[in-house]
Amino acid sequence: MAAVCILDEFEVHKNEKFLKIAEKLKPELHETYIKPKKLLKFEKHLKVERKPDMNQIEILEEDFEKLPEKKFKRDDQIVLDFGDHQVGYVTLDLSSAGSHQDAPAYLYLRFAERLEELGADPAEYDGWISKSWLQEEYIHVDVLPTRLCLPRRYAFRYMEIKVIDVSMKYSLVINDVQVKAVSAVSADQIPPLKMKDPLFRKIDRVAIRTLQNCMQDVFEDGPKRDRRLWIGDFRLQARANYLTFKNYNLVKRCLYLFGGMIFNEGKISACLFTEPLPEPDDTYLFDFALLYGSALLDYYEETGDRDTLRDLYPVAIRQIEIGLDYLNEDGVIPDRSSEFWCFVDWGEGLNTQAASLAVLIYSLRYGVRLARYMEDEERIQWMLEKEEELKKNAVEHFWDEEQQLFVSGSERQVSWATQIWMILARVFPKEKNRELILRTIDVNPRIQMVTPYMYHHYIDALIRSDEKERALEEIRRYWGEMVHDGADTFWEVYNPYNKYESPYGSVMVNSFCHAWSCTPTYFLRKFYENDL
Amino acid sequence: MAAVCILDEFEVHKNEKFLKIAEKLKPELHETYIKPKKLLKFEKHLKVERKPDMNQIEILEEDFEKLPEKKFKRDDQIVLDFGDHQVGYVTLDLSSAGSHQDAPAYLYLRFAERLEELGADPAEYDGWISKSWLQEEYIHVDVLPTRLCLPRRYAFRYMEIKVIDVSMKYSLVINDVQVKAVSAVSADQIPPLKMKDPLFRKIDRVAIRTLQNCMQDVFEDGPKRDRRLWIGDFRLQARANYLTFKNYNLVKRCLYLFGGMIFNEGKISACLFTEPLPEPDDTYLFDFALLYGSALLDYYEETGDRDTLRDLYPVAIRQIEIGLDYLNEDGVIPDRSSEFWCFVDWGEGLNTQAASLAVLIYSLRYGVRLARYMEDEERIQWMLEKEEELKKNAVEHFWDEEQQLFVSGSERQVSWATQIWMILARVFPKEKNRELILRTIDVNPRIQMVTPYMYHHYIDALIRSDEKERALEEIRRYWGEMVHDGADTFWEVYNPYNKYESPYGSVMVNSFCHAWSCTPTYFLRKFYENDL
Repeated sequence: MAAVCILDEFEVHKNEKFLKIAEKLKPELHETYIKPKKLLKFEKHLKVERKPDMNQIEILEEDFEKLPEKKFKRDDQIVLDFGDHQVGYVTLDLSSAGSHQDAPAYLYLRFAERLEELGADPAEYDGWISKSWLQEEYIHVDVLPTRLCLPRRYAFRYMEIKVIDVSMKYSLVINDVQVKAVSAVSADQIPPLKMKDPLFRKIDRVAIRTLQNCMQDVFEDGPKRDRRLWIGDFRLQARANYLTFKNYNLVKRCLYLFGGMIFNEGKISACLFTEPLPEPDDTYLFDFALLYGSALLDYYEETGDRDTLRDLYPVAIRQIEIGLDYLNEDGVIPDRSSEFWCFVDWGEGLNTQAASLAVLIYSLRYGVRLARYMEDEERIQWMLEKEEELKKNAVEHFWDEEQQLFVSGSERQVSWATQIWMILARVFPKEKNRELILRTIDVNPRIQMVTPYMYHHYIDALIRSDEKERALEEIRRYWGEMVHDGADTFWEVYNPYNKYESPYGSVMVNSFCHAWSCTPTYFLRKFYENDL
Repeated sequence: MAAVCILDEFEVHKNEKFLKIAEKLKPELHETYIKPKKLLKFEKHLKVERKPDMNQIEILEEDFEKLPEKKFKRDDQIVLDFGDHQVGYVTLDLSSAGSHQDAPAYLYLRFAERLEELGADPAEYDGWISKSWLQEEYIHVDVLPTRLCLPRRYAFRYMEIKVIDVSMKYSLVINDVQVKAVSAVSADQIPPLKMKDPLFRKIDRVAIRTLQNCMQDVFEDGPKRDRRLWIGDFRLQARANYLTFKNYNLVKRCLYLFGGMIFNEGKISACLFTEPLPEPDDTYLFDFALLYGSALLDYYEETGDRDTLRDLYPVAIRQIEIGLDYLNEDGVIPDRSSEFWCFVDWGEGLNTQAASLAVLIYSLRYGVRLARYMEDEERIQWMLEKEEELKKNAVEHFWDEEQQLFVSGSERQVSWATQIWMILARVFPKEKNRELILRTIDVNPRIQMVTPYMYHHYIDALIRSDEKERALEEIRRYWGEMVHDGADTFWEVYNPYNKYESPYGSVMVNSFCHAWSCTPTYFLRKFYENDL
């Protein structure tokens, strides 16, 4: 499914005061210069859909310093391994050997977050999102020696250099390569996780690296592809950030960006662009808009910043009002699963009708808490009533007494996502929620979770249902398995039942450093670290 | 044959005084901004080895101004026709239509001197010179709108733009494209050729355009490929320049560059690089080195610049001395046709032994004239004697009494080139030379001329043999045929018997604006214009 939203009647109303506040909070990026660690030989047998057998990878040199000794001719290739996931700008120092350079050097460069990506042929890409996300470049170098400063930013650990051609009279020499890695934050000040289990410590480190590499000019969803500020990702990133980098200004900046660009009826966009100027995408996602209030509440509770709360409270409340306007005569949200309208999770065939109501109920609870901080008595009352009413509607319309599970849509689909959001919405009291999550695990509905974003909510639901130990085991099982699969940063999509699933028609454009998967550090540091 | 020279024992001796003079004469380039004239549809049936049937070319728009109305999506293509051959820097003004740009725009650009080049697939190129000469670029545009200023210089009339991808949400809009055409000279001040025949007027214009587009920082051989200062090309360019642009400083600059970078034994290089610093190529060509004196003499006779003559006379004489050192015990130059050592002409299987002796004799005559201007009596005498001696040797070793033609090499090969150079060397008196050139035309030796460089010497030989009318007809036949074949500028290689011949294994890298083919303007303006 090509999941895009294009709003036809689309007007942007900018709040210049809010946008100025956001602009002032634009971060100065930290810059770190990193050199490759090892030189690898390009492995033709790599497959993008398979974990590489590391025995098949030829390590040409353990020592990067030996690179200048090599002389590159037509079709010669090498892979530089930078040792960890990097986001930044690459510079190559190039020169020639042999006779004077008598023709341009023509290079092909490719950047890969995972080694096996190099096994894919970009020419064969046929996904529905843009080919332009493939991190490849064709570059002519007319004059050697030169310092070649690539102007674009890449997200990668591995860099392939292929010499398309030099000439019969000279060879290319690569004297040096480095990346100026950039991020709004530095990880130096974060104390190591206090838990002893090395796997959890590793999961925590990978999660922090994921978050760090997504924290740029804004909280990006993924530094390789999309590179945008999405509410759904942002809310989780901010939570992880409070336990690690504690960069409150970047959160505030993003809250003001969303609040500063409203479209028709007061809706906020599901995502924003910042280049060339801040602009909202013409995409409305029902659940993302509602979760803005949750992100605002988290920020306020973390910082006590009342000015921001006062400025943005009306925006958050407006999203709830708009959400309620969608209720039909049955008091539930109509099924719009055929559209890209309520995200919940990637995953073929997921029906989101019940979950959309659950997110609305969930947002009402956060709305009430916001209203309490604002001492907005009238709204507190109104939202409490709505919350109760919708919980009743949810049970009435979506609870299947026989299966003892929630169903969704006219086909009465049972999915993990629906149960989890109903638990987070607290439609039932805690003990019944606990039974529900255990039953879901037991039944294991066919409609699986596929994104770490959805898994986050699953872990959250377990913890909120007093299943902390099980939640920890699920973190080990899911994110731990990604670590076993070689993740330096956590992935955008990871379905343990179909590891190379892609929502885009090709795993080549999946993002392997994706913000919404960084939350193990949030869970481990908030709920487990101090138990031990 | 991969025709390159790599000198193993190669030392450069720089004359800093000469190089400073050359540096000061570096031209300020004229800049002219040119827009495309027409929009064409890319024609899949174009073949690089075939003149395009213009009926098959779809003209999308006669009016370039309509370009911004088009919306480009994945795989859309267009060809811009700039109306004439251009050398310069291209700028594109790009924007988007539809939703906000949510992925980079990925473009493929190709520049072609002739339309049919667009029918070739660069991926199939398998010639022996570098693929890097193919004028193609892959470009990601991360932020729209933008002014995309391509940093490299191209030589082209046609520019293909293919959108590899945008996204489902937006289209690319090309608001404007222009080229900043550059040359050391402007053609504005050149009066039109006074001859009435429209074909000769056209030949003259195309020749001038060829010369203009090769006159850059130095006299380049071709602005698309090689882009270097070669003595053989330079000498002919300078001659055409004296009748047209009269840019004496550029000639002087090039004479000093060659004279300022001498290698072992005082040899001058066949060609020079100017980037990143002036450097000679490690290529010695026997005939090119000897022709330096001819270029110096032309310059002095044109300008009367005695300082330059005094500075560079020793360099020219040294080339003759070195040439004479190669004589073997028979008093002729040994056969080194298997090496890239004496150019004479491209062309499969040409034996250059006899021609190399002829060029040496020719250079002695120019040497004598230089020595006279320098009042160097001792050398005049010495060179006159050598000239006579070598003429005798030439007849003794290479004249075939039976065939009444010169032969070359142990296989006694008869070629056009050998006869022509023996005529230019004036081995025989004028009347016998005339008989020889007429006999050559009559016999039509199998080893043809293939470059306009060789044809120049053929025309020269006809004129010097009082066959002016025939020479004019040969200009019409050879360069006129190139005009009929669509030349906007004259080509590097043009064999009327094999029009798509390439010395490089693929016509894709042939240069179609090549300096050594600009000399019709020299002949027409020097020998014909004032007759009429």
